[in-house]
Amino acid sequence: MRIAMCVEYEGWNYFGFQRQNECKSVQGELERALSMIADEKVTLSCAGRTDAGVNATGQVIHFDCTKERSDRSWIMGTNSYLPRDIAVSWACHVDDSFHARFSARARRYRYIIRNTVARPGVLSRGVSAYHGDYDTTLMHTAAQCLRGEHDFSSFCGSDEESRSKSRFVHYVSVERHGPFIVFDIAANAFLNHMVRNIVGSLLLIGEGKRNVAWMSEVLEARNRDAAGPTARPDGLYLVDVTYPASFALPKRDYIGPLWLE
Amino acid sequence: MRIAMCVEYEGWNYFGFQRQNECKSVQGELERALSMIADEKVTLSCAGRTDAGVNATGQVIHFDCTKERSDRSWIMGTNSYLPRDIAVSWACHVDDSFHARFSARARRYRYIIRNTVARPGVLSRGVSAYHGDYDTTLMHTAAQCLRGEHDFSSFCGSDEESRSKSRFVHYVSVERHGPFIVFDIAANAFLNHMVRNIVGSLLLIGEGKRNVAWMSEVLEARNRDAAGPTARPDGLYLVDVTYPASFALPKRDYIGPLWLE
Repeated sequence: MRIAMCVEYEGWNYFGFQRQNECKSVQGELERALSMIADEKVTLSCAGRTDAGVNATGQVIHFDCTKERSDRSWIMGTNSYLPRDIAVSWACHVDDSFHARFSARARRYRYIIRNTVARPGVLSRGVSAYHGDYDTTLMHTAAQCLRGEHDFSSFCGSDEESRSKSRFVHYVSVERHGPFIVFDIAANAFLNHMVRNIVGSLLLIGEGKRNVAWMSEVLEARNRDAAGPTARPDGLYLVDVTYPASFALPKRDYIGPLWLE
Repeated sequence: MRIAMCVEYEGWNYFGFQRQNECKSVQGELERALSMIADEKVTLSCAGRTDAGVNATGQVIHFDCTKERSDRSWIMGTNSYLPRDIAVSWACHVDDSFHARFSARARRYRYIIRNTVARPGVLSRGVSAYHGDYDTTLMHTAAQCLRGEHDFSSFCGSDEESRSKSRFVHYVSVERHGPFIVFDIAANAFLNHMVRNIVGSLLLIGEGKRNVAWMSEVLEARNRDAAGPTARPDGLYLVDVTYPASFALPKRDYIGPLWLE
């Protein structure tokens, strides 16, 4: 049978999601815990292979196994074998046509900045600290040119493997919530480093080092050298993955991180 | 001259605030960093000596030194010598009548619970995870009997040193914010373990194991055995300390933790 799960994790302690022989990975920890509960070797697939240091509140995985367990047992049992910075938030049985990566219709990321003069002392893992003076309205306005289908080569990391650099951005927003700046972006799929390169460029606009129109110039350049620096991984979260309603996956009231609905 | 500072820290990595010879303490780390910047040995006093594992967003300290530094240099310089889980958020020169502990008129604590079925995988340090079904309206109602001046012996840890167990609670509230339950309490001063014992008792009421009227019975008993268990330290924060306005200390827009004003 096939099981789907939603997983949250802090990335700072891992060399990315993907299993690697020599390094600690989120996938490696999950497969180890799942294999204990399944009582057989489990190999999983995920919706998005997040980079080293990147977090998730809504990563989705699936795997096949032969043992029958209740959804609740999958959650509680697996969590008891996972380290404290990885946890399963839901689990459910799905039919064999479900694939965490290939069935996904959209991914949503949030990037959280703590924007205070002094660096944070609490909850400093899981946010990026920037102490500059950022105009979030300018950043939000500049980001709107990214909506729709575009070639995102300008925001693409050098180790991207897909031939087409075209992606469809459903929405993007930049908002201030007290001491936090929250970037929110959803697309059918993302290129390697795409969110962090977009955030890095928007920060230049927020600080007044570039104007709003510069964002569409960068997009049209289709050249990574045109964009700003890659923002740090700490504040980035894969928060949600959308699948066809026919799979009837569980919904979460808060996709997070923090208190964010 | 005398310098006052506001300090935030995560407590899970320290054996409490107070300096100890054999153990890592927040005071020890602060005095080490301050002595580097002051270029002389610094000994500090604090508003509230938090227990092992307890956090702060608004601890206040003061110390005397002979070197002249700008307020900004005190913040940035000290932070550069502190570990990432301790940070200074403001610093200012105060006159010699200021004392972080004896000038304080009120302390305010918040206790943060993440209340979801599955345990958290992100930001799990700095919240207490409880997965039960809690009625926060009942808890808030029950807590109101604590307001005003009372003998809080029922909520007092065994190693409390003060003779009088009487304290004045200015306000107390229990509110749900999405997946979080937030306890908020201010008093002239607190007994050892007082907040955690109050939270532990309110949780029994929230779960329906005790009724609302039980809270005032516990208070009137003046006996620690009457109250509920001590809640875990993870979710507890010293968020604010009030001083006479004449000291003109800096204000923070958000006293936290998280997004809380």
